[in-house]
Amino acid sequence: MRTIWWEDGVVVTIDQSKLPNRLIYLRLRSAKDVAAAIKKMQVRGAPLIGVAAAYGLALTAWRSPAKTRRRLLNELSSAANILKSTRPTAVNLFWAISQIMKVARQCKGSVNDVKRAVIEEAQKLADMDLRVNKAIGQNGATLLEDGDVVLTHCNPGALGTVGYGTALGVIKAAFQAGKKIKVIVTETRPMLQGARLTTFELARERIPVTLITDGMVGYVMEKQLVNKVLVGADRILKTGHVINKIGTLSIAITANYYHVPFYVAAPLSTFDLETKLPDITIEERSPVEVTHFLGQRIAYRGVPALNPAFDITPPDLIKLLITENGLLRPDEIEEKVSKWLRER
Amino acid sequence: MRTIWWEDGVVVTIDQSKLPNRLIYLRLRSAKDVAAAIKKMQVRGAPLIGVAAAYGLALTAWRSPAKTRRRLLNELSSAANILKSTRPTAVNLFWAISQIMKVARQCKGSVNDVKRAVIEEAQKLADMDLRVNKAIGQNGATLLEDGDVVLTHCNPGALGTVGYGTALGVIKAAFQAGKKIKVIVTETRPMLQGARLTTFELARERIPVTLITDGMVGYVMEKQLVNKVLVGADRILKTGHVINKIGTLSIAITANYYHVPFYVAAPLSTFDLETKLPDITIEERSPVEVTHFLGQRIAYRGVPALNPAFDITPPDLIKLLITENGLLRPDEIEEKVSKWLRER
Repeated sequence: MRTIWWEDGVVVTIDQSKLPNRLIYLRLRSAKDVAAAIKKMQVRGAPLIGVAAAYGLALTAWRSPAKTRRRLLNELSSAANILKSTRPTAVNLFWAISQIMKVARQCKGSVNDVKRAVIEEAQKLADMDLRVNKAIGQNGATLLEDGDVVLTHCNPGALGTVGYGTALGVIKAAFQAGKKIKVIVTETRPMLQGARLTTFELARERIPVTLITDGMVGYVMEKQLVNKVLVGADRILKTGHVINKIGTLSIAITANYYHVPFYVAAPLSTFDLETKLPDITIEERSPVEVTHFLGQRIAYRGVPALNPAFDITPPDLIKLLITENGLLRPDEIEEKVSKWLRER
Repeated sequence: MRTIWWEDGVVVTIDQSKLPNRLIYLRLRSAKDVAAAIKKMQVRGAPLIGVAAAYGLALTAWRSPAKTRRRLLNELSSAANILKSTRPTAVNLFWAISQIMKVARQCKGSVNDVKRAVIEEAQKLADMDLRVNKAIGQNGATLLEDGDVVLTHCNPGALGTVGYGTALGVIKAAFQAGKKIKVIVTETRPMLQGARLTTFELARERIPVTLITDGMVGYVMEKQLVNKVLVGADRILKTGHVINKIGTLSIAITANYYHVPFYVAAPLSTFDLETKLPDITIEERSPVEVTHFLGQRIAYRGVPALNPAFDITPPDLIKLLITENGLLRPDEIEEKVSKWLRER
């Protein structure tokens, strides 16, 4: 299953807001289309929104009437700003946009050469995401043993990436290597990515998956129904702090209490070695996502709600990070990730 | 607000499954009606299901055609079995039924004297619940200070009791004493008692309340947005283990990690000094409550779900228990609760 691809000037991707009941494809024709789909979470998942943004710039290049290099660069720059304003927390978005903009600026040819370079780079990033996820899967699969029951949260899967997935990629790699792996997934309120997307993705791969509510994590750990936790990430800081879907922090604390190892799988593009912890912006989404459910109000009228989309798990709760270049402890990020990024 | 009362052979109570959008009253005419309402969670909350079961026996007595004492006792006994089979975990149900059956068996008069005694005892238990909750409120209010923000879970309120509430009774008592108290409540999936009932109950009392999802507990504690946790209980063991709505355990572990004091408010009828931890039955409800939401499927078809209704919080995570007779530490239950029960 590939989640996003380029078809002659159109970006085709799954409308994730309609799953699991309907599998509908969106046909996006401009950076604005892409930005709207990201905002509405029709397209979600840190690696996927990075690739989608890159494709958004490719669409701008494809449709641009610009006759000069400078005009094209201006158009790309405006589109980049629109795309960057969609969701503030996942760093892959900013990373992918800066990769594309760098290629555009560095291309010294004609306006058509720049267009072609942008479109090619977007394709390259998309293809790279798939390769990177397979490498994460191979590296992480060594941590999983026959008989493991892995708890995961949200959808760190094929649907949140171009394909295969990060944390779910690890599970798939272990499963495909013949290990008997079962999964328990939290529904992940308010947007239910665990219930809607991860059950869909794993059931279609015939990997056994059982759904729980977010509040059942203590129960399943106390009953020893899971023995490992494996999640994705939206941003990982130099200090080892992992920013991921709201609910991850409580899971990490509970896992720590029950001595269940907690692993995070993410590509190197998720690491942010620059930003400091106090400077992180946690996206606060509309309270309506919490007070209403499928359009029906579930709280008393007028009652306010919080809706932070992410929380921050401190490094002492994390056993290992799984990347395409290998495994590392949270206290090894500065040393190893800098080195791996330099070597690319 | 009174949640349940007796009206000449009819038990009137709120249909809690319709809140917060509709305030509808049920008119229950038999023990079977009461049992069905408890099973469907139209009537819920450990103290309330105890009182409702007592009223169920009062309805049996009221409508009984029995001409002999023995026949009436047999009818009451059958009704008691139907009521006891509704929900296995909360102990107040079994406690209230045994109180009524004891009164019925000990009444030495005519069949009509027994009927009258049963109805009077049910009324007495209902009135006592209200008095007990006010005493819990007064005792617990000493723990809350001006400016506190209290996290609560589920609905340990007037709606889960005859009136006033246990943990919410404590908050109301402190608020009515002029302390500025704010509340953050978890929505409490899968049945959303926090979103549907606690926001309704507190907003109507003008106590500031903010809704969060169950997965946001780590976030609000890390950000120091709450400084106390106060929950109810469905059963408390001699060892200090507290059985309460699913999700309580993760909250207690997270509170412990952030050094936020965790309090439990419950009447003495919630204490079970007999049953041992391994003998506790945790009610497993239909997986449809998890895989579907308001009748719409939210998980991929055929995916299984767990649905334990309760979890068990160990005593080391609990700072104090709040009862109508006073406050106590979990390690003081055997000594103090036995004494208080003997003195009644």
